[in-house]
Amino acid sequence: MLMSGTELARAIVQRAAEKAADYTRRTGAKPCLATVIVGEDPASVTYVRMKQNRCHKAGIESRHVALPERTTTEELVAQIRELSDDPAVHGILLQHPVPHHIDERAAFEAIAPHKDVDGVTMHSFAGMSFGHNDFLSCTPGGIMRLLDAHDVEIAGKHAVVIGRSPILGKPAAMLLLARDATVTICHSKTVGLADVVRTADIVVAAVGKPRFVQGDWIKPGAVVVDAGYNEGNVGDVDFDAAVDHAGLITPVPGGVGPTTIAVLLEQTVDASLRQLDA
Amino acid sequence: MLMSGTELARAIVQRAAEKAADYTRRTGAKPCLATVIVGEDPASVTYVRMKQNRCHKAGIESRHVALPERTTTEELVAQIRELSDDPAVHGILLQHPVPHHIDERAAFEAIAPHKDVDGVTMHSFAGMSFGHNDFLSCTPGGIMRLLDAHDVEIAGKHAVVIGRSPILGKPAAMLLLARDATVTICHSKTVGLADVVRTADIVVAAVGKPRFVQGDWIKPGAVVVDAGYNEGNVGDVDFDAAVDHAGLITPVPGGVGPTTIAVLLEQTVDASLRQLDA
Repeated sequence: MLMSGTELARAIVQRAAEKAADYTRRTGAKPCLATVIVGEDPASVTYVRMKQNRCHKAGIESRHVALPERTTTEELVAQIRELSDDPAVHGILLQHPVPHHIDERAAFEAIAPHKDVDGVTMHSFAGMSFGHNDFLSCTPGGIMRLLDAHDVEIAGKHAVVIGRSPILGKPAAMLLLARDATVTICHSKTVGLADVVRTADIVVAAVGKPRFVQGDWIKPGAVVVDAGYNEGNVGDVDFDAAVDHAGLITPVPGGVGPTTIAVLLEQTVDASLRQLDA
Repeated sequence: MLMSGTELARAIVQRAAEKAADYTRRTGAKPCLATVIVGEDPASVTYVRMKQNRCHKAGIESRHVALPERTTTEELVAQIRELSDDPAVHGILLQHPVPHHIDERAAFEAIAPHKDVDGVTMHSFAGMSFGHNDFLSCTPGGIMRLLDAHDVEIAGKHAVVIGRSPILGKPAAMLLLARDATVTICHSKTVGLADVVRTADIVVAAVGKPRFVQGDWIKPGAVVVDAGYNEGNVGDVDFDAAVDHAGLITPVPGGVGPTTIAVLLEQTVDASLRQLDA
């Protein structure tokens, strides 16, 4: 069965828009998400434009900071600190990836924890790992919402996460663990990956390689979450083959993607309301 | 074969003592570890006394802060903040566990990151997870040293960690992952634990239940690390049964325990030197 994210995302955004309207009624201003982009990676430019559109529709102000490719780490950190200190900005998103010469971690850490609506700081990661959940990394957060919306049982199940990036694989593993899954984290150095995946009740593919996960790796009835988004709208799972084995499977596009942005908008609005009440 | 920690710990402490002496030559003062204990749990009192002894022998000053059982979270946080601000204190250890009415996480977070020689803050956890490794949680740090001292291959191996506490199971999993193991995290809600453990090349038992891991759960030749320390000097692994299956196995006592304290002393001295150079 298809595990679509479109309807779910719409519902999350709808609720975020209502809360944004509430914020505006109370303050006369809009919740504000600042998006920082360095350089002109075409995929990133498209993605940021899409986020701005979604913000606009949800009643969220979108402030766009575009920095040239040659920006230094120090300049980027200074820019992000300024946004962290700006009371009119409620959430900050640094578009990933940044150019290679920049220390991305240093830039992420310049985001004030209470404005980390994309869930990329060390503080947010530890919060997810320890069950505090102030802000979630958006894609893992979207994945959990998808699983819940489709009544997927998580506790006691074996979840296999393929990929270990700091904003996708690792936090996804930690969120599944917090919900009492037995969690295995696999990666490029894993030996016998196919056999490990074959033991999974829940598979999260977060590798960034098109059609990497094969159909016959999927245990009959397993839940397959494809967090990949590769060139040509292709996921990390060989969907056409996997769909015959999986009990539930996300399409690409229309699966994890929409829920990721929805969680970003929701967390931005929540941040604005929390900052109002603080 | 036995994977003893005694010799290794001695070597680590020896080197820490040399560095401590170097610190003293340069400053006239000693590296200083402040230990905070709340209440009078007998095991904790014994453990803290042992740490103080070891500090003394290694040329590390040990400052002891004993607070009554009725201490509030606010009082404890204030006390720890004071130590965080005190330039004569280089490392801070809050003895775990604290009384139930205290918010232990809030207390841990009052430790300045550059003094977190026990590796308990959210910052240190994320650092271990992302491969920065400023300070390690001491028991997971000791485990990694034990594995390295015994030339255990980690990359590509399947490591199963039983237990998911914020200062033992989770950081152990993250350190093994950073060394390219495929890592499975198990816990009380894991279904079919014995079968999961049977697939492990490396087993880390961090459950806190005496002789919980059975001998026939151990794959022939696997490496078994027992991080448990229960009443009566008993580990989390049924040693007498497991020793027949394991390729390498830590004894209790004399395995992980000594390396834990050794890493604590080493990190305290390193902290003092880093604060000197900062």
